[in-house]
Amino acid sequence: MGTVSASENTGAAAGGDHPLAGLFAPRAIAIVGASATSPWTQLTLSGLHGYGYEGAVYCVSRSAASVGGYPGFPSCQAIGRPVDVAFLCVPQDGVLAALDDAAAAGIRNAVVLSSGYAEVGGAGIDAQAALLAHARARGMRLWGPNTLGFNNIAARASVSAIPAVLPVLSPALLPAIAIVSQSGATASELYEFAHSQNIATSFVAATGNQGDITLSDVIDYLVDDPRTRAIAVFAETIRDPAAFVAACTRALAHAKPIVMLKIGRSELAGAVAMAHTGSLIGDDRVFSAVCERLGIVRVFSGEALITTAGLLAATGPLARPGLAFMSISGGACTLVADGAEAAGVTLPAYDGPTRAALAEALPGFAAGLNPLDITGAAVRDPGLFERVIPLVAGAADVGLVAVGMTVPNGAGQGLPDALAAIGRAVAVTETPVVLVQTCMKALNDLSREAIADNGLPPVITGIEAMLHAVGRAMWWSARSRAAPPALLLAAPPAHPTDRLASERAVLDHLAAAGVPVIPATVATSRAAAEAFAAGQTAPLVLKVLSPDIAHKTEVGGVRLDVPPDQAGAAYDALLRAVRTARPAARIEGVILSPMRRGGLELLVSVSTDATWGPVLTVGLGGVLVEVLADAVVAPLPVTRADVADMLGRLRGARLLRGFRGAPPADLDRLADVIVAIAAAAVRLGPGLASLEINPLRVDGATVEALDGLVVWQDAEETDEH
Amino acid sequence: MGTVSASENTGAAAGGDHPLAGLFAPRAIAIVGASATSPWTQLTLSGLHGYGYEGAVYCVSRSAASVGGYPGFPSCQAIGRPVDVAFLCVPQDGVLAALDDAAAAGIRNAVVLSSGYAEVGGAGIDAQAALLAHARARGMRLWGPNTLGFNNIAARASVSAIPAVLPVLSPALLPAIAIVSQSGATASELYEFAHSQNIATSFVAATGNQGDITLSDVIDYLVDDPRTRAIAVFAETIRDPAAFVAACTRALAHAKPIVMLKIGRSELAGAVAMAHTGSLIGDDRVFSAVCERLGIVRVFSGEALITTAGLLAATGPLARPGLAFMSISGGACTLVADGAEAAGVTLPAYDGPTRAALAEALPGFAAGLNPLDITGAAVRDPGLFERVIPLVAGAADVGLVAVGMTVPNGAGQGLPDALAAIGRAVAVTETPVVLVQTCMKALNDLSREAIADNGLPPVITGIEAMLHAVGRAMWWSARSRAAPPALLLAAPPAHPTDRLASERAVLDHLAAAGVPVIPATVATSRAAAEAFAAGQTAPLVLKVLSPDIAHKTEVGGVRLDVPPDQAGAAYDALLRAVRTARPAARIEGVILSPMRRGGLELLVSVSTDATWGPVLTVGLGGVLVEVLADAVVAPLPVTRADVADMLGRLRGARLLRGFRGAPPADLDRLADVIVAIAAAAVRLGPGLASLEINPLRVDGATVEALDGLVVWQDAEETDEH
Repeated sequence: MGTVSASENTGAAAGGDHPLAGLFAPRAIAIVGASATSPWTQLTLSGLHGYGYEGAVYCVSRSAASVGGYPGFPSCQAIGRPVDVAFLCVPQDGVLAALDDAAAAGIRNAVVLSSGYAEVGGAGIDAQAALLAHARARGMRLWGPNTLGFNNIAARASVSAIPAVLPVLSPALLPAIAIVSQSGATASELYEFAHSQNIATSFVAATGNQGDITLSDVIDYLVDDPRTRAIAVFAETIRDPAAFVAACTRALAHAKPIVMLKIGRSELAGAVAMAHTGSLIGDDRVFSAVCERLGIVRVFSGEALITTAGLLAATGPLARPGLAFMSISGGACTLVADGAEAAGVTLPAYDGPTRAALAEALPGFAAGLNPLDITGAAVRDPGLFERVIPLVAGAADVGLVAVGMTVPNGAGQGLPDALAAIGRAVAVTETPVVLVQTCMKALNDLSREAIADNGLPPVITGIEAMLHAVGRAMWWSARSRAAPPALLLAAPPAHPTDRLASERAVLDHLAAAGVPVIPATVATSRAAAEAFAAGQTAPLVLKVLSPDIAHKTEVGGVRLDVPPDQAGAAYDALLRAVRTARPAARIEGVILSPMRRGGLELLVSVSTDATWGPVLTVGLGGVLVEVLADAVVAPLPVTRADVADMLGRLRGARLLRGFRGAPPADLDRLADVIVAIAAAAVRLGPGLASLEINPLRVDGATVEALDGLVVWQDAEETDEH
Repeated sequence: MGTVSASENTGAAAGGDHPLAGLFAPRAIAIVGASATSPWTQLTLSGLHGYGYEGAVYCVSRSAASVGGYPGFPSCQAIGRPVDVAFLCVPQDGVLAALDDAAAAGIRNAVVLSSGYAEVGGAGIDAQAALLAHARARGMRLWGPNTLGFNNIAARASVSAIPAVLPVLSPALLPAIAIVSQSGATASELYEFAHSQNIATSFVAATGNQGDITLSDVIDYLVDDPRTRAIAVFAETIRDPAAFVAACTRALAHAKPIVMLKIGRSELAGAVAMAHTGSLIGDDRVFSAVCERLGIVRVFSGEALITTAGLLAATGPLARPGLAFMSISGGACTLVADGAEAAGVTLPAYDGPTRAALAEALPGFAAGLNPLDITGAAVRDPGLFERVIPLVAGAADVGLVAVGMTVPNGAGQGLPDALAAIGRAVAVTETPVVLVQTCMKALNDLSREAIADNGLPPVITGIEAMLHAVGRAMWWSARSRAAPPALLLAAPPAHPTDRLASERAVLDHLAAAGVPVIPATVATSRAAAEAFAAGQTAPLVLKVLSPDIAHKTEVGGVRLDVPPDQAGAAYDALLRAVRTARPAARIEGVILSPMRRGGLELLVSVSTDATWGPVLTVGLGGVLVEVLADAVVAPLPVTRADVADMLGRLRGARLLRGFRGAPPADLDRLADVIVAIAAAAVRLGPGLASLEINPLRVDGATVEALDGLVVWQDAEETDEH
């Protein structure tokens, strides 16, 4: 029984020099708890065998039996040769001892299959903490617990009970995707689906509880993995936002697309997830905004996850924003025309010269439309494809060509001459091309043969799936060319005097930050109110100022449209009403300000998300935001361009552009003011729960905060709402 | 050469006594233009062979050669035996002669494959008219032209170049769908997709140009076809609305679901369709409303078409509105929880007794949630399925149980014990059950074997596809239990005096129909205006009355908030402004009425759709309808319940229920008024283009039309808009 020094186990592993290369691309694997009758052992060995693993495999068990031809040992220490990762397939009560043994053997990485940890709550949470402390004390990194492990197909390694899907689609040749899934069962389903769509998989992993190594670590590793051209993620929760932001930012800088199916959108899903993995599920709308910022393609089904990642892996960034579609099926053309807009796909209209060239290539055809119905004529004259594909591929704004054409799979009828013609056209076309089937179907060995024989481009099955994938690929391509993402995550500590209590103090803070606020005074006597009013010509608004009253209207604390000469009487009446409704409230005075009419009202707020830090919300005030929740969110920081983009995405955006004779809002000015509001909120520090301006009034070039409210995270309820 | 009398050819055909049984379930088929080298002949014969057609097949060609073992003849008349249908696979210039021959042989039905008719426009339209006249004169019915024909799989017949998909899935045993597609290529794709989803197809047809027999005729036939349990339709246009309504109404009465993918939603699609089949594409929103009325399940992708029809074919109407979902995959449970609401799927929460029973069946589990994550424990203890499926199937409101479970297909890993346990549970469960895969995949012979061996229920592949299909199946089930649909299609002729020209005349017509309208007078002098105003206490509105001015505000023709004592001055000012802006306009006077404040404004209109007749539109006035197009449409007639349903579907419906302290609208009263408006519109007759009430004011129980405008279909533009 000999031990191996740690240095021997942490040299250059097969997967390059990433810190996690020893784990993910191990030169030698110990299966601890190996047994010929264990399904876990069987799956791991069949994966290693199927992928053609070239490293050493050792089977560790009390009986020291060899399994499947791999040598057996009574312990890791007994192996006496370097091992990069120990796959612990032992019951929960044997895990710590197995870790000790692996550490003593100099093994630096362990994959822990056992469940019964944080995902069951209660004592499981403590057990997981103890496990992690144990590993850390021994200098070991952990994958899991409660995980099926991972298959690094590009490295031919399986440390996993995720079944290998065979045959592997030439990982060295085909653009491949990585699949990273919180759930092991789902990892298998996605992996199998990718295979059925002829999309190669370089890496498939179940992240499990992410006790030590997280999703963010895997993404970081995969950014450097040359075989992985896109990363497909199925996740419930992000455990380390800062690391996640860093990894995704690096991925975007390397033009490596991340596509994410993040579940837990619904409250019900949150309850289910709590019941099964102990995940905390954050505000879904904020996560979508974070994805937009980070260039993550967010999708909502397993099929969309794999199809979109597969397309991006095949094409890389698309250079121009439009899709050219053509088919011999008019039905397919109409389905594409119908579905494009909702999928965010642009179908550029061909210009005069392109239409003329198409007319020449397609004699007797009426129109050079996009989508282009080349009709059954292409069955008799497959050369049509060779003439037409390069034409539409070279048309202005076309970044991708999709050709509707059936690829044979035994049931479907292929058109061999047409397939060969398409292959010849693709060979001389620089713009990426894909083939598209009308419905989703499995591509089998017959299909793969037809693809290889004809030199066909990637195939997407299902017009709806294709349109969705193209729309998102176009979005990602534009995003990958834009500025690198910035994300604040947390506001810096604020000066203690910044704890604003009253509306007046909030407006003063905003004014100091460059936000235009309505002129106002705080009167503490009828005489002071009358003195302010004497200088005004237009009607006034009076509002009670009290740290105990958040909802002023309900207690009679607001008077609108008060003529200046009636300000004193209104002052008295307001205080009488408020004292009757809320005798215990502290009243600090009455705010007087001019009454504004016309213009549009916006709601602008900055609130602190538990995961993603300060988040800006902009909505159209009144009915739109309150009845239709017409609001857009973005994480801080925001630029003027970010805010302009947010305003443009409001459903009521038309109102800002001048509606029914109203002057258009000065959008640059408005965006600048909102950026200043965001900055003012950040200056309030990490204790801020929310700063809300409601309304921010916009009337042409006039932008003005009429009201402001701050809530602190540790504040008690100050009102009965 | 002998002829056969017509009576011999029109007896009881294999398909029953429907008038089209001779065409669709022929006892004998003549293939005209048959040739061993023709792809059409090859496809037809291989279909007849593959399906095991038991009738007679005759090959007609100049050479009189037999093909594929079927006897050859020089003409139909030479056959000398009864033939139900002639499949004319001859060039366009030979079609009329072939028809003559078939008619002379006593054949009553022809399928015309040739293209070059209405779909190419121009002379093709004339050629089609001539073809139809020719057939009619000879008492023949035509399918096509420009069609690939049909396969009646249940009758083992192929009169078609739509490739047979084999093996046929036991049509006698499995619930089957019919596929009817305007496009032949799409018919093939849909048929193949259904097969890959283990959904049997009883009938597949390409309708082509529908020169004689239309989609409506096929639906009518399929309502009576006992093998067809649901009808999947891919269509661009409805050529005979009245027949379509009649056929769909009969289908609903027979609880035979129709699922429809109607393309041509976009303007672009309209252009593409014009280029390839000459279809006229109507207003898409109206068609959706027609589908709702007729109980047609409208879908938007080929996959949704087949999956939804397949589910309904398998289950029939679902008796209760909720879905119970369970899986060993927590990921699948969360995907279902996330996607249910958007798909319109209700996941009933289990009541106390069910939760208690579940807790007993699943010892150690936290919660009896729906979706129910039964975890990997079910792998070790497959009996869990037998205990849990009947429990959730019997829970309140559960009309369907879906079990997330992988069915083997070679790549995926099946769990044999679990599949057997599910089969045993399904055998004793009355509520319909389906199995669900996480992603869409093909079910192959291995899958079919596993399904048969274990007595498994229908399988739906893809959680997103399943949720969509279940949501629509639940909608259809509820619709099929409700009242039979009524559709007016055309307004009856109106009395000529009903040609209303002025706003005042419109409001008078509405008042006569029981619609409350605002009190008003038409003044033709300043003195008359002052006389009306003298009787008023509140401010007035003045509006110009002119048959030449539709947009009054823009020409200074509206004065709001006029104190009664200033009515005379306002009258003069208004007329001055209008005469300056539109000197040529005929001015009939000035309408004076009280100015209304508060309440909500609705837009109510009835317009005439070219296909579907009078259509009611209800929207929330002001910003909501103008910026967000917040409006709902329904074909006439409408009941009070229909209108209440429309109001509830407005995005701003909350405003009607009393928002921010406003009184809730009296919805019964409002619905009654809108029904009265619809009736008033119908009374205006078929020449009506539109009657628009904007606004209809609602304030609590007060409902009042403030303005009305009628446009006639033959009216010239009366204003510069």
